[in-house]
Amino acid sequence: MTLTNDNIKTILQGVKVIGFDADDTLWVNETYYREAEEHFAVVMAPYVSEDISLPTLTKTEIKNLGIYGYGAKSMTLSMLETAISLSNNQVKASEIEKIIKIGRALLNKPVTLLDGVKPVLQKLKGEYTIILITKGDLIDQERKLKKSGLDQCFEHIEIVSEKTENQYLKLLDLIHSKPEEFMMVGNSLKSDIIPVLKLGGWGIHIPFHTTWVHEETNENPYQWDRFFKMDNLSELLNVFFGN
Amino acid sequence: MTLTNDNIKTILQGVKVIGFDADDTLWVNETYYREAEEHFAVVMAPYVSEDISLPTLTKTEIKNLGIYGYGAKSMTLSMLETAISLSNNQVKASEIEKIIKIGRALLNKPVTLLDGVKPVLQKLKGEYTIILITKGDLIDQERKLKKSGLDQCFEHIEIVSEKTENQYLKLLDLIHSKPEEFMMVGNSLKSDIIPVLKLGGWGIHIPFHTTWVHEETNENPYQWDRFFKMDNLSELLNVFFGN
Repeated sequence: MTLTNDNIKTILQGVKVIGFDADDTLWVNETYYREAEEHFAVVMAPYVSEDISLPTLTKTEIKNLGIYGYGAKSMTLSMLETAISLSNNQVKASEIEKIIKIGRALLNKPVTLLDGVKPVLQKLKGEYTIILITKGDLIDQERKLKKSGLDQCFEHIEIVSEKTENQYLKLLDLIHSKPEEFMMVGNSLKSDIIPVLKLGGWGIHIPFHTTWVHEETNENPYQWDRFFKMDNLSELLNVFFGN
Repeated sequence: MTLTNDNIKTILQGVKVIGFDADDTLWVNETYYREAEEHFAVVMAPYVSEDISLPTLTKTEIKNLGIYGYGAKSMTLSMLETAISLSNNQVKASEIEKIIKIGRALLNKPVTLLDGVKPVLQKLKGEYTIILITKGDLIDQERKLKKSGLDQCFEHIEIVSEKTENQYLKLLDLIHSKPEEFMMVGNSLKSDIIPVLKLGGWGIHIPFHTTWVHEETNENPYQWDRFFKMDNLSELLNVFFGN
């Protein structure tokens, strides 16, 4: 959908609640996970090359999502499982220790806000109900939120294990809102945008430069005219307040 | 506080929302963690005795709570850290694998409801707003809730990283309730009862036969007359509906 003065007005009338994804929408995340993968490949180098260790790790992580969920602890356990298997049980205690440290480092990373985050949230906050909806590990997402300094921007914060249509519906019910009043902003078409569009809500996709393979989708968001794509968060202010 | 017909009536008038803890209040949990510890001690037996491995593990787990949080994944990472350290980096890949499996087994345990849970929840459900407030790992608590078959009993489910006064206040705010209308039922004085009593709410303590050392508290709940202790959940029906 192309933004014109007309449709901006339509949106302004309908939308009351704006939901934001956190990782790679408000702050850098995937970049750190890619770095961690590279460090894992270095630990595994005595046994297998990166061409083997990295795809095997990704496969193990996706296989374990159902039991471990998202986040650094889950990734650590998947790295360890991969290391034991790819080394044919030869991996040393010192290498196991290094892998545990790679995971721990992820949990201690600084939180780097993406461009425009603070002013955009502050401007929208006065006019709309602003909520945060993030997927992942409870304690880690809480830590990042605290470090971000953004916790006061949100009227409600929801940390979920998966972002499904059902989860969005439950959340909207909780805050006494409806899909047509709800706009979701995020970097993942699969988690942030498509389920909300399917429910009848609005979706603003702001891609991050890297996407985890598991977050990829074949669905075309342009089949919905409540879908918009933007280069950065600041463009959001144009939609809501004009230029 | 001794239950009499008079104070039962007082409670009935005031309480509108009843919150339930999950682990060791609705279903068995700590028992499985104790079993896991025993299995860990067996893996560690070639290096150190149980007298060393178990207290060291507990110490490591408590040290790591801030970064890893609660739950089986956190415990697994703490077991691995303890194993590397207590074996002086001699622990073998096959032993690491066994430890990972101990943690994974925790995530696959059946959910065994404690006595009276289903009838109590079903009876209360019609008359009060029943919510679940549980601490721990997001995906694991969701799994247990699903396996329990109890998810339809609750109007709201909140999974938190810590049960503090502030967390209870936020939750009450979300569901538009006040501490004096709120009663919390749980096995942990520290997490379920004391913070709620401090806020002005009601607390019903139903001890489980085993409590993790980190959940112990020195505060005396009897200083509040909104505190009750019960042997099992069925006694709750006496409070609300009489004999």
